[in-house]
Amino acid sequence: MAKIDFPEAIKELHNELKKLPGIGPRSAERIAVWMIQSKKANPLPLAETLKSASAEVSLCSECGFFIDTKGCAVCNSIGRDEGLICVVEQPTDILPLERSGVFSGYYHCLGGKLAPLDNVTPDDLRISQLIERVKKRNSPEVVLALTADVEGEATANYIAQLLESCNCSVTRVAQGIPAGGGLENVDDLTIMRALQGRR
Amino acid sequence: MAKIDFPEAIKELHNELKKLPGIGPRSAERIAVWMIQSKKANPLPLAETLKSASAEVSLCSECGFFIDTKGCAVCNSIGRDEGLICVVEQPTDILPLERSGVFSGYYHCLGGKLAPLDNVTPDDLRISQLIERVKKRNSPEVVLALTADVEGEATANYIAQLLESCNCSVTRVAQGIPAGGGLENVDDLTIMRALQGRR
Repeated sequence: MAKIDFPEAIKELHNELKKLPGIGPRSAERIAVWMIQSKKANPLPLAETLKSASAEVSLCSECGFFIDTKGCAVCNSIGRDEGLICVVEQPTDILPLERSGVFSGYYHCLGGKLAPLDNVTPDDLRISQLIERVKKRNSPEVVLALTADVEGEATANYIAQLLESCNCSVTRVAQGIPAGGGLENVDDLTIMRALQGRR
Repeated sequence: MAKIDFPEAIKELHNELKKLPGIGPRSAERIAVWMIQSKKANPLPLAETLKSASAEVSLCSECGFFIDTKGCAVCNSIGRDEGLICVVEQPTDILPLERSGVFSGYYHCLGGKLAPLDNVTPDDLRISQLIERVKKRNSPEVVLALTADVEGEATANYIAQLLESCNCSVTRVAQGIPAGGGLENVDDLTIMRALQGRR
């Protein structure tokens, strides 16, 4: 009696779905079977958007944000403060900053943070591009908005050191108690930083 | 200052990913951004497998299992017991039964279970096809392997009643304590059924 298994096409789909972040073998099987079986499932639009997204979207060579055929929405937007550059880790970090409506300058995405244990060195990040951008401008302010963890701190320190010779001022976003957060929900390190940063 | 957002292609991809079962808006955004950004991501094979799976795979008109161009792996396999039909809810239920290696007959997938509250009536399930299959065979045994919940029980009772006039024997898989399970981890209903089914 032959071994019964899913048809090849389902197994290949399952294999590809398994590679997505946050999708384990179980969810991948669930999605693959749902794709075939459910009347609501429509795999073709998903296949099309996957293709068009990978063909159209790339990263801006200037700031590192996502761009499509229309060019960079950040670098091309009018009315921004030329003297402000905010350094973030990922392109996705730009959206919350923009949503707040508080920052009016330009951005620079590093593409990550220094992590020697994961083999992420300064050459893997867009640090040299940042130095060049800063040098081209007239003594700008560089705001470092990196994650408040060990690697983020190390990356911020490294960049601050490099920028010392660049005729610019370097600042960091404040660390402290988040809005609406009571003291009882906050960890020790945050309290320490909130006290250190008091004004 | 224009509002900054992801390029259209990413937003469309995000919209399509959100429709998948078990994928919320947050995971969809994570996957969409990862698709564009990660060097490991490769959206084209996924797009291809989605297309080929939806084009090649359908359901067997006889048993309801997944078939591709090669036909039904279950119905075409040699050496199965013609006098045994196991009724399951979904095509995916066949794999665990096959993996156990204990069952050597044919299968019949209903495509669900009776659920009047969700508008699933006997006409939505492959019940009439089951009756026809049973009538064609020489007094087979029909094993009902449906979920042990209220809808599963109702569906099993309904099918058993219909099969009374069909010259076949109807059995149900036993309910009881799962292998390796201690009594302390088992709910009351399972204990009741394990006691009722003692032999």
